[in-house]
Amino acid sequence: MNGLFEWSRLVEFYETDLAGITHFSNFYRWMESAEHAFLRDRGIVLHQEGIGWPRVNASADFRKPIKFGDLVRVTVSVAELKTRSVRYSFEFRVNESDEIHATGEMISVCVDLATMKAIEIPAGIRGLLE
Amino acid sequence: MNGLFEWSRLVEFYETDLAGITHFSNFYRWMESAEHAFLRDRGIVLHQEGIGWPRVNASADFRKPIKFGDLVRVTVSVAELKTRSVRYSFEFRVNESDEIHATGEMISVCVDLATMKAIEIPAGIRGLLE
Amino acid sequence: MNGLFEWSRLVEFYETDLAGITHFSNFYRWMESAEHAFLRDRGIVLHQEGIGWPRVNASADFRKPIKFGDLVRVTVSVAELKTRSVRYSFEFRVNESDEIHATGEMISVCVDLATMKAIEIPAGIRGLLE
Amino acid sequence: MNGLFEWSRLVEFYETDLAGITHFSNFYRWMESAEHAFLRDRGIVLHQEGIGWPRVNASADFRKPIKFGDLVRVTVSVAELKTRSVRYSFEFRVNESDEIHATGEMISVCVDLATMKAIEIPAGIRGLLE
Repeated sequence: MNGLFEWSRLVEFYETDLAGITHFSNFYRWMESAEHAFLRDRGIVLHQEGIGWPRVNASADFRKPIKFGDLVRVTVSVAELKTRSVRYSFEFRVNESDEIHATGEMISVCVDLATMKAIEIPAGIRGLLE
Repeated sequence: MNGLFEWSRLVEFYETDLAGITHFSNFYRWMESAEHAFLRDRGIVLHQEGIGWPRVNASADFRKPIKFGDLVRVTVSVAELKTRSVRYSFEFRVNESDEIHATGEMISVCVDLATMKAIEIPAGIRGLLE
Repeated sequence: MNGLFEWSRLVEFYETDLAGITHFSNFYRWMESAEHAFLRDRGIVLHQEGIGWPRVNASADFRKPIKFGDLVRVTVSVAELKTRSVRYSFEFRVNESDEIHATGEMISVCVDLATMKAIEIPAGIRGLLE
Repeated sequence: MNGLFEWSRLVEFYETDLAGITHFSNFYRWMESAEHAFLRDRGIVLHQEGIGWPRVNASADFRKPIKFGDLVRVTVSVAELKTRSVRYSFEFRVNESDEIHATGEMISVCVDLATMKAIEIPAGIRGLLE
């Protein structure tokens, strides 16, 4: 490991598909889980103070399958911090191994939940993200 | 068929699990889809006029698996209409067959979305459900 | 707590719906997660030695909503151990509270994965379940 | 419309989240549904003859939310047909509108299901994809 924040949990049976591996849509859900755990770790409370973080882009590259019963481990880092958005970078590993099974990126935009308009990331939150 | 309202759609790949069949949690989602289609068919608009229909109970019996690519067909009927709740009854079939693959029940309570308290089903809606 | 096995995890954002609470279909997924954690805790390896545990029935009563960010805690107990099936009983609580938000039951049948036919629960597994 | 293949269905309640819109993970599931419908339309049978199509990459740009009760319409086109893989391009619209709510791409690799190794797309299937 490289000092990055890491979120992990066991892969559940309901996350598999008939190919016998986890369905690719779960990688996007795990990115969200990892993003949220990262924000909580930085002291950023989600969906409070009228601020939300909808995604404008999410992508993933799948190299090796992840299986039922694997401990999926997802590292999170801030790849780019812009005025109104954050680009996160993710790496997926399983169990004790350092091999990368997938990588992903996600861009979340800071919005005023009342209007759903993009706003500048408040200074207090920006400080916690840096 | 027996004159009951029926909702149907193809089973998707993401609804399967590594046992090669559809995951049992999807039957509850299909009951919701069938319930909502039934209500729309009766002219009842969901999540409008401040009324919601959370479930207080849902159960299902699984007799035969439903598979990827099957057309799942779900019949809906009102098993019991009480002052503040509706009990629905569901039967699951696939493709052209009349064989029952699963049955289910669901009790939905009429609530005021502002307070989330159970309220009497408004007369206009009750009339459409009978 | 009462000595029962308990599984827990944080409720994720993707498990919520537009009513602002967790969607009822997740309770069935959490029952599966809790069942599987319980079996692992007893030393029972899932989907090995050619044995699977499909459900023939699952039901739940919903009393109070469970929300984004709650730690959902699910207790598992064997309510009935029959020759070929297990009936599990579940209680759902959140965070530090002892209040029950939901209860559920699930009947899982022991099957030979090669034939998907119900078989007697092998003595070794039965011993671990008692 | 532009002659592209289009898949559509109503957005379901269980696909929403507490922000009141459909959760972004569903766009990847809808891309899969649209891809599979496209392949069936071309006469390509999925998960038969020992061939599967796992994804190696999937990405999406989200421009406008899609809501409960919307008819989501997804166009599919083959953006690139390589020796062992297909890159699909998707556009998401809702109801009668021509406005694009999201775009996506997905790269699916042709594999031998027995070995999960990439293979050349068989000539018969290639002909149907062109």
